[in-house]
Amino acid sequence: MVELHLLSPRGFRAGGVYAGIKSRRTPDVALLVCDRPASAAAAFTTSRVQSPAVTVGREHIASGKLRGVVVNAGNANACTGKQGLRDARRMCAIAAETIQCDPREMLPSSTGIIGHLLPMEKIERGILETSESLGSSLEHAQLFGDAILTTDTKRKIAGVRVKIGRDQVTLAGVCKGSGMIGPRLGVAMSGAKAPGSRGFARASGAAALDAGARGSARAAGAISKHSDASSLRGKHATMLAYLTTDASIAPALLRKLLQQIVDVSFNTVTVDDHASTNDTCAILASGAAGVKIASPADVKKFSAALAEVAQSLAYQIAADGEGATKVVAITVRGAATTDAARAIARSIANSNLVKCAMNGNDPNWGRIVSAAGYAGAPFDPDRCTLKLQKTLVFRGGTPVAFDANRVSKSLDAKEVTVELDCRSGSAEATVWTCDLSKEYVTINADYHT
Amino acid sequence: MVELHLLSPRGFRAGGVYAGIKSRRTPDVALLVCDRPASAAAAFTTSRVQSPAVTVGREHIASGKLRGVVVNAGNANACTGKQGLRDARRMCAIAAETIQCDPREMLPSSTGIIGHLLPMEKIERGILETSESLGSSLEHAQLFGDAILTTDTKRKIAGVRVKIGRDQVTLAGVCKGSGMIGPRLGVAMSGAKAPGSRGFARASGAAALDAGARGSARAAGAISKHSDASSLRGKHATMLAYLTTDASIAPALLRKLLQQIVDVSFNTVTVDDHASTNDTCAILASGAAGVKIASPADVKKFSAALAEVAQSLAYQIAADGEGATKVVAITVRGAATTDAARAIARSIANSNLVKCAMNGNDPNWGRIVSAAGYAGAPFDPDRCTLKLQKTLVFRGGTPVAFDANRVSKSLDAKEVTVELDCRSGSAEATVWTCDLSKEYVTINADYHT
Repeated sequence: MVELHLLSPRGFRAGGVYAGIKSRRTPDVALLVCDRPASAAAAFTTSRVQSPAVTVGREHIASGKLRGVVVNAGNANACTGKQGLRDARRMCAIAAETIQCDPREMLPSSTGIIGHLLPMEKIERGILETSESLGSSLEHAQLFGDAILTTDTKRKIAGVRVKIGRDQVTLAGVCKGSGMIGPRLGVAMSGAKAPGSRGFARASGAAALDAGARGSARAAGAISKHSDASSLRGKHATMLAYLTTDASIAPALLRKLLQQIVDVSFNTVTVDDHASTNDTCAILASGAAGVKIASPADVKKFSAALAEVAQSLAYQIAADGEGATKVVAITVRGAATTDAARAIARSIANSNLVKCAMNGNDPNWGRIVSAAGYAGAPFDPDRCTLKLQKTLVFRGGTPVAFDANRVSKSLDAKEVTVELDCRSGSAEATVWTCDLSKEYVTINADYHT
Repeated sequence: MVELHLLSPRGFRAGGVYAGIKSRRTPDVALLVCDRPASAAAAFTTSRVQSPAVTVGREHIASGKLRGVVVNAGNANACTGKQGLRDARRMCAIAAETIQCDPREMLPSSTGIIGHLLPMEKIERGILETSESLGSSLEHAQLFGDAILTTDTKRKIAGVRVKIGRDQVTLAGVCKGSGMIGPRLGVAMSGAKAPGSRGFARASGAAALDAGARGSARAAGAISKHSDASSLRGKHATMLAYLTTDASIAPALLRKLLQQIVDVSFNTVTVDDHASTNDTCAILASGAAGVKIASPADVKKFSAALAEVAQSLAYQIAADGEGATKVVAITVRGAATTDAARAIARSIANSNLVKCAMNGNDPNWGRIVSAAGYAGAPFDPDRCTLKLQKTLVFRGGTPVAFDANRVSKSLDAKEVTVELDCRSGSAEATVWTCDLSKEYVTINADYHT
């Protein structure tokens, strides 16, 4: 079986080179190019502090068309004022020139340290060099995947194929993220250039997706070891994700689907709940497969496949969280609303006490139940049940006798499941996080700007 | 000069004994008793998961009168169902009998591990023993102060005297708190028994207090070393605070002032932002000084003094946060509203990235500005200025050149000030937190339930 990657969908080329921005010699400038104008959508951080790359990205995605993406790692181009804005536009202009398109057809991304101007000479040389070595092979996808990493220890890729009628379309993606991970992505609307104020409190139609596509998160993904990121300890990380497909789909529909998808994938992963200035998720649909996604049945299939890719990528971010020794998958069921389920799951996921207990394999259910209590959502401890790694530990407001040693041993795993059933409704949500280890403190304290 | 303590206000007696609840031999049952029915108010956790002690406390405070407080440490009596509720009432009944009052005139508190029934025999013996050794000396206040501690390494006390007309009233307090600290206290209303849904989003009249009483937080307090808490590592902590005064003040006014005071003190301290099931702040006014607080001028003076005591206590909690090496005092000025100022300060205070940077003396202003960005409050990075230990590091959307080594050295201090001026209004707020150290992870990971 062929491993699917960013360039498995037809119509795309990519590459990455080392341009001298990262301190360690590993690719740090990358290009993803579509052979024709792709239908595109993008979701950006809803933080009030946004990188000029995000500002320019919002402008350029407004048309619903992109020819490509230009990325650098090692420098976030954030809090860099007007020069930062000029530099983000210049990145697009340089990249556009190499493929003979309009600069507004390029989406720029940057990740790395905040508050430093981009080294534009290096960036320019890097873009030109990358443009001369674009290709569609696995190696090209890996170069792109490596070039966007900062504190990540692993490359993150995913892909699936889905039958649409008698035809087949491919969906794939690549992402980065390890620390400064608490994305609050909102899809940029057509013509809208200003950041929206939307957060999580959205009643979207994504609950079905949430329930359906979960569990396949790991199946779709392949995590490859990336050994060169150790020198980037403590550098500001960000979540960047790029999704590709060779299906044909209208930009308006793509935007709608993207918000649903990010709400059940990247918006449900948290390492330290610190939304970045640069968080970005973009999708490009080349149409090269000649398959139009429009009928409700096709949209449903396409959407489920896209969720599978995005959830796999989000899961890989949690698994590679700074200092993480395990993924903690928190599922809240039986909540009154999807928003309530998400709020409760997120409250548990972001509790340092819960995260430390997970690090120490401590079946400390009191921390979990109490974290549910202050989520700001309806929650009645006297009705709920709580399971750790499938073992019931709390029911109806009182503890359940369990073998603490056995449960502790079961927590010593690559993935720990926390399942809270509120028994107050039918909504559910899953949030992925990781444990909090001394290594997280080492990475983020023992480093100086 | 005499050191003021919990029993400096006239009309109170207290004591504490070791009853065998804590694993280490240090007091764990305590009584605070007022010689006459005191005017009283209390604020409790607004978490949906509440200890029976809080449930009973809400009931008992509804009358606006208390004769005393009965506390145990080592066991939170939380998630203990109906038996827990019976036990909390029984604690009050036992204590009430010793001083010949109605059980409903006692406020119960518990702190410690979640999910275990109270050892009622020990509790009963402890209450009886304490009642036989009540007194008004510094030593009695210290016994009470020690008995409420769990993971705390230091006893926390504060007191001030204030002139009201030609008379003098004394205000004092004691508190505990080290981990599981992210209080969201709401004052229990007269007759109200159910938890309110109020959180921080309140437009209170406390902004003036916020600005006025800050800075004196340390001045009013005396931190005494408490060496016996090391065996309580990883036990669930809670915030408990008891305030006393010998002024005479109506319960309704006391309730109103208490909400204002907790909003600028205990509700603005965070160690790990984990609100406890047991967080409680109670105030008892004995009236023994024969001074009535009623006129606007007197209320203002009294209120400022009360804020000074409460802020000192809150500050001591941050200073003794689990694993803390320093207090980080985050002041947001020039915000559009007090709520916005608080939200931004809190967002910065709760960022693990910011807390780790503080642990490593890293002047990493990018993490601070980006944390302000996702606070969910209006914030324009292009207008703001940011100072670390009085050194300007960011202004108008772009970095300011500063001597990183010098600022790093200045961060190696017992208190670090972070001052963010939004230049968008006149509201301000301060939040106290501490750094995140490897020791926090040790305390909370290397312990098993």
